[in-house]
Amino acid sequence: MEIAFVLYPGMTALDLIGPYEVLAHQEGVAAHFVAATGEPVTADAGLVIAPTTTFGELDRADVVVVPGSSAWERVLADGAVAAWLREVHPTATWTTSVCTGSTLLAEAGILTGRPATTHWAVRDALAARGAVVSTDRVVRDGSVITAAGVSAGIDMALTLVGLIWGDDRAKFTQLVIEYAPEPPYDAGSPETAPAELVAFARSALEGRSA
Amino acid sequence: MEIAFVLYPGMTALDLIGPYEVLAHQEGVAAHFVAATGEPVTADAGLVIAPTTTFGELDRADVVVVPGSSAWERVLADGAVAAWLREVHPTATWTTSVCTGSTLLAEAGILTGRPATTHWAVRDALAARGAVVSTDRVVRDGSVITAAGVSAGIDMALTLVGLIWGDDRAKFTQLVIEYAPEPPYDAGSPETAPAELVAFARSALEGRSA
Repeated sequence: MEIAFVLYPGMTALDLIGPYEVLAHQEGVAAHFVAATGEPVTADAGLVIAPTTTFGELDRADVVVVPGSSAWERVLADGAVAAWLREVHPTATWTTSVCTGSTLLAEAGILTGRPATTHWAVRDALAARGAVVSTDRVVRDGSVITAAGVSAGIDMALTLVGLIWGDDRAKFTQLVIEYAPEPPYDAGSPETAPAELVAFARSALEGRSA
Repeated sequence: MEIAFVLYPGMTALDLIGPYEVLAHQEGVAAHFVAATGEPVTADAGLVIAPTTTFGELDRADVVVVPGSSAWERVLADGAVAAWLREVHPTATWTTSVCTGSTLLAEAGILTGRPATTHWAVRDALAARGAVVSTDRVVRDGSVITAAGVSAGIDMALTLVGLIWGDDRAKFTQLVIEYAPEPPYDAGSPETAPAELVAFARSALEGRSA
């Protein structure tokens, strides 16, 4: 089982590392970290990850995981990730995104007319690119699974382990990563956070995306 | 505010990247990825992270974050991380661990007689090394904060943001990473998982640690 974890400059590392931690330990998995070039990739808060392969070298995968970025509009404009997704998606059993990684799936034509979710701050932007946007944390439509912002990748990946390897293996994985979350606040979604905080965060994120 | 994120071969990446995503975006933070040498470090499921500095070069930090490893006994035997922790801990305002990273703090003498938490599977091993082990997800004792297994680093780091920058900033961060978890199963702790799954996972993890 070949799993392609997509890397690009300015990506949000936790979008990728949440699913990686859940998926890459499964039996028979070969984890590939794929980027435009072999050069190390710097995430949006300074973490540097080394690719193991490139878009040119990896032309198929059983599972594709696409992280988002606070600078997602720049990543769309660059075009490299979406171009690779157009090529590799037809070979994949599961194509997945976390956070604004959904906009890259949309750019590649994968979400046109499909139910999908994304980071709460870009729901309108994703709808404008042809997806039928849901506010759910994880949305599965056929072979495509999308997750909401950043930390939702963990929920998405556990769902995917259940689909591929079964519920028992997914529960084992949840126990191994001790995923019994206890957020110290109740501000993790625009539905529960104070309205003024949501407005402030939306504005701060728009500042980062340009 | 200098934050040292500790890297070592065989580490569990999500232990570190959860706290990194929460802490490294805060205003005024300089994120350092510190390892024994400048060579890229391979985590326990294949992710390769590049250090930005070494234990020899970085002799102080405001915050230290120590991840765990499924091979934690080998990491203790190696000794490099614990030796550096003995040097840097007295300079730090906050010393933190995630998962079995607690055993490295204990080895450095930081947890002797202190309340602390860890991955559920190594509670006895941590107690044997002098800590007063709690089953809580996040434990603060003075300047030391320990977190339970893997995903608990996110809860720990949000708690720390609240302590350093205040509750409003922590809530903002929670909203930005859309941390409103919805685990698809209720198997994330030994208290909620089926007993036979806990026994199976304990045995599997012991196989990995040697």
